[in-house]
Amino acid sequence: MNVTMSLADRLRAFVDIVGEANALTATADIKPYLTENRGLYHGASPLVLKPGSTAEVSAILKLASETGTSIVPVSGRTGLVGGQVPREDGQDVLLSLERMNRIREVDPVADVIVADGGAILADVQKAAEAHDRLFPLSLGSEGSCRIGGNLATNAGGTAVLAYGNMRQLCLGLEVVLPTGEIWDGLRRLKKDNSGYDLRDLFIGAEGTLGVITGAVLKMVPRPRGRQVAYVGLASPEAALQLFEKASQRCGSALTGFELMPRIGIEFTTKHIAGVRDPLTSIHPWYALVDISTSDSAETAETMMQELLAEAFEAGLVSDAAIASSLAQQNAFWHLRESMSEAQRPEGGSIKHDVSVPVSRIPAFLAEADAAVHALMPDARICAFGHLGDGNIHYNISQPVGADKAAFIARWREVNAVVHAVVHRHTGSISAEHGVGQLKRDELAASRPAIETELMRRIKQAFDPAGIMNPGKVIG
Amino acid sequence: MNVTMSLADRLRAFVDIVGEANALTATADIKPYLTENRGLYHGASPLVLKPGSTAEVSAILKLASETGTSIVPVSGRTGLVGGQVPREDGQDVLLSLERMNRIREVDPVADVIVADGGAILADVQKAAEAHDRLFPLSLGSEGSCRIGGNLATNAGGTAVLAYGNMRQLCLGLEVVLPTGEIWDGLRRLKKDNSGYDLRDLFIGAEGTLGVITGAVLKMVPRPRGRQVAYVGLASPEAALQLFEKASQRCGSALTGFELMPRIGIEFTTKHIAGVRDPLTSIHPWYALVDISTSDSAETAETMMQELLAEAFEAGLVSDAAIASSLAQQNAFWHLRESMSEAQRPEGGSIKHDVSVPVSRIPAFLAEADAAVHALMPDARICAFGHLGDGNIHYNISQPVGADKAAFIARWREVNAVVHAVVHRHTGSISAEHGVGQLKRDELAASRPAIETELMRRIKQAFDPAGIMNPGKVIG
Repeated sequence: MNVTMSLADRLRAFVDIVGEANALTATADIKPYLTENRGLYHGASPLVLKPGSTAEVSAILKLASETGTSIVPVSGRTGLVGGQVPREDGQDVLLSLERMNRIREVDPVADVIVADGGAILADVQKAAEAHDRLFPLSLGSEGSCRIGGNLATNAGGTAVLAYGNMRQLCLGLEVVLPTGEIWDGLRRLKKDNSGYDLRDLFIGAEGTLGVITGAVLKMVPRPRGRQVAYVGLASPEAALQLFEKASQRCGSALTGFELMPRIGIEFTTKHIAGVRDPLTSIHPWYALVDISTSDSAETAETMMQELLAEAFEAGLVSDAAIASSLAQQNAFWHLRESMSEAQRPEGGSIKHDVSVPVSRIPAFLAEADAAVHALMPDARICAFGHLGDGNIHYNISQPVGADKAAFIARWREVNAVVHAVVHRHTGSISAEHGVGQLKRDELAASRPAIETELMRRIKQAFDPAGIMNPGKVIG
Repeated sequence: MNVTMSLADRLRAFVDIVGEANALTATADIKPYLTENRGLYHGASPLVLKPGSTAEVSAILKLASETGTSIVPVSGRTGLVGGQVPREDGQDVLLSLERMNRIREVDPVADVIVADGGAILADVQKAAEAHDRLFPLSLGSEGSCRIGGNLATNAGGTAVLAYGNMRQLCLGLEVVLPTGEIWDGLRRLKKDNSGYDLRDLFIGAEGTLGVITGAVLKMVPRPRGRQVAYVGLASPEAALQLFEKASQRCGSALTGFELMPRIGIEFTTKHIAGVRDPLTSIHPWYALVDISTSDSAETAETMMQELLAEAFEAGLVSDAAIASSLAQQNAFWHLRESMSEAQRPEGGSIKHDVSVPVSRIPAFLAEADAAVHALMPDARICAFGHLGDGNIHYNISQPVGADKAAFIARWREVNAVVHAVVHRHTGSISAEHGVGQLKRDELAASRPAIETELMRRIKQAFDPAGIMNPGKVIG
């Protein structure tokens, strides 16, 4: 087997590994794999492979390394940076984990779930729930995103404040290396200091160092009490002060603290069926405060009431609604989670996924708003997100009546001014969505040269043939 | 500058970087750097360098790479695996971070401390306390161990259950690479998905990939309530059940759960001044349960009382003492933390630092005890540690009246049978102390070959001249 095989023979050999029934070769079948949700990237590929086992993944990558065939791993296809989209030259073969979607084992005594790389996040959550546990990773696309992709992008979401990113929720991995070798690192130990941390190197590498085919995931105790409040605020400063108070008072019981602007509430109540504003009064900013307690429902209740009472007294909070039922808690969160989708009917949206030290959020917002309005006075800024993590989805809807294509054409220009503010506050221009194609070159230009150099050396060491998701993360 | 310089000229050039006053060349001055606490390793070195800045560390490593001079980084010298001890051939130059011991900055709004690699752990704890925060890493040697070493070994300790290992407490690093290049990764972001996770690669690499000269460390809110109980138990099974109950009931408020055997209590009360058994009744096993709550002192109080009441009712707990003052809380912990030291007057001790999935601890202890007693019927097993982390310090004191040297000579033989039990339970033979010299070859023999191979490729990519702490972690 070598690089001189004809293309047809090579593709045939790949198909033989998984069998005809598990390979897509017709243009119409392949099409859904060639774009991503935002429509920013359109790639081409002759073949989608759907292996059914780790051994098949291994055989595919071995053949790929031997023949110099580039492979793009595909998980739930919900990524937002083009990491799962093949390049335009039509050379990349797609490797989809969709058939490897089993929950391999739930061990409630060790508090772990072992899952295939293609297991859907919601299925992992349900498996934990069935054992009266919580798998805390939670994000908008949880019904279709898959564990392998969650790990490859070190996914964040709405419960990071209390439970951390995906990195913190994983104890062990099974990875097929670009050479086809299998690393069985499926450990389920809380502590293991026995060599270099390979696990964390694969997590967040966006499929450029290997394919994650299995993982040991941590479960945590299910909270016994929960309270969610929707709070009207005068400014991001007030939100920050409320967050600090909540953090001090609630400690690790503070599970979520999300910031939302008035315009986001307007978009959401207007465009998303069934969503309404929980408050009758109108405020420039809002926070969603989520408190979960391990001991009893009353503790969460008391904590939230005392926090809000204190915040009212300090003049931080203008008005607030505390959810009175599970349905209301879900409705409050649904409002927040629909915010991105609610921008769609408003036309084009230029997006940023940035983080700064939490204390810098008000200054960042003020400076970024000024910079964007200097470029486009009528742009409608809809900045929302995980204030407690310092992570803002700084989205900008087009001016009313503007031309969508002309607006979107200014994506990079707008990025440049917003990211300049991020750098001024020592932040990251890629907080939770990853690098993919979208931010590859911009990151390389902004990080220390030695860092890119070390990444390049690692890539070379793990993938000497350069076949794994080429063109993503590093050039 | 090249490898053909005479040894004397080479050493002279190193001394010139830090200045005469900051270089030790006299045998008597160097001597304390050549051994470690347990007396297992004795090395040799012609020179100890004490750089005063990151730039000086950089100059040292650049010269070392150019001249092929091996460098052993030295932090607080409290490591237990020989990682900080030079080799016996006298070629290694020691690089001590002891002069780089500053707290560079405390930022209570971003909840971070920026510290030099040589800052003493207790000083970091105090700096957090001065700002009404907690830096949660806590271990026996905290008065002398240093942050660089804590990071290089991914230190654990007694609060891992709630706060994680050192890895979870670090946001960013400054590292001098073996080539002398400086990586400024001193980020203070909660979220940053912008490339390969270099930080976690340096953490736990035991100084074989570079020297950690600075770090951004996380502070957490100081608990408002705390309760510590000392509990008498019939068996490790009862301890495990109590842990599960505590975990379910207290969630993240359960800060510590330590297991201790009767013999450990006997050694400690006998040999450590001022320590007494908090219970008058005698039990085969004991647990130390530590609950910290963020909201109020009463919550911790109530939680502990309800937990113990329920455990008594279920027949899990035979007797218990709840600390009635801060002094008593400290006394309970002092008993636990003196347990290793209390073994010393009893003669030789063969030690293991192992982890297994938490649920396997009772089976592990039973099988390991049987295996050790089959070898040495009169060996006195003193197995204690972090049950909640699945991490046991499985220590074995020599039989009464035995010859210490003859007993210690059987170290590897005893290791072999204990570690075989660990492997049977899919555990780690290096849970928190690291690899160093002590476990290098044994780990290489027990882990998948591909894992050692990947580690070797990373080592080669970061340290092409092979000068960084050679012979440690990987051969």
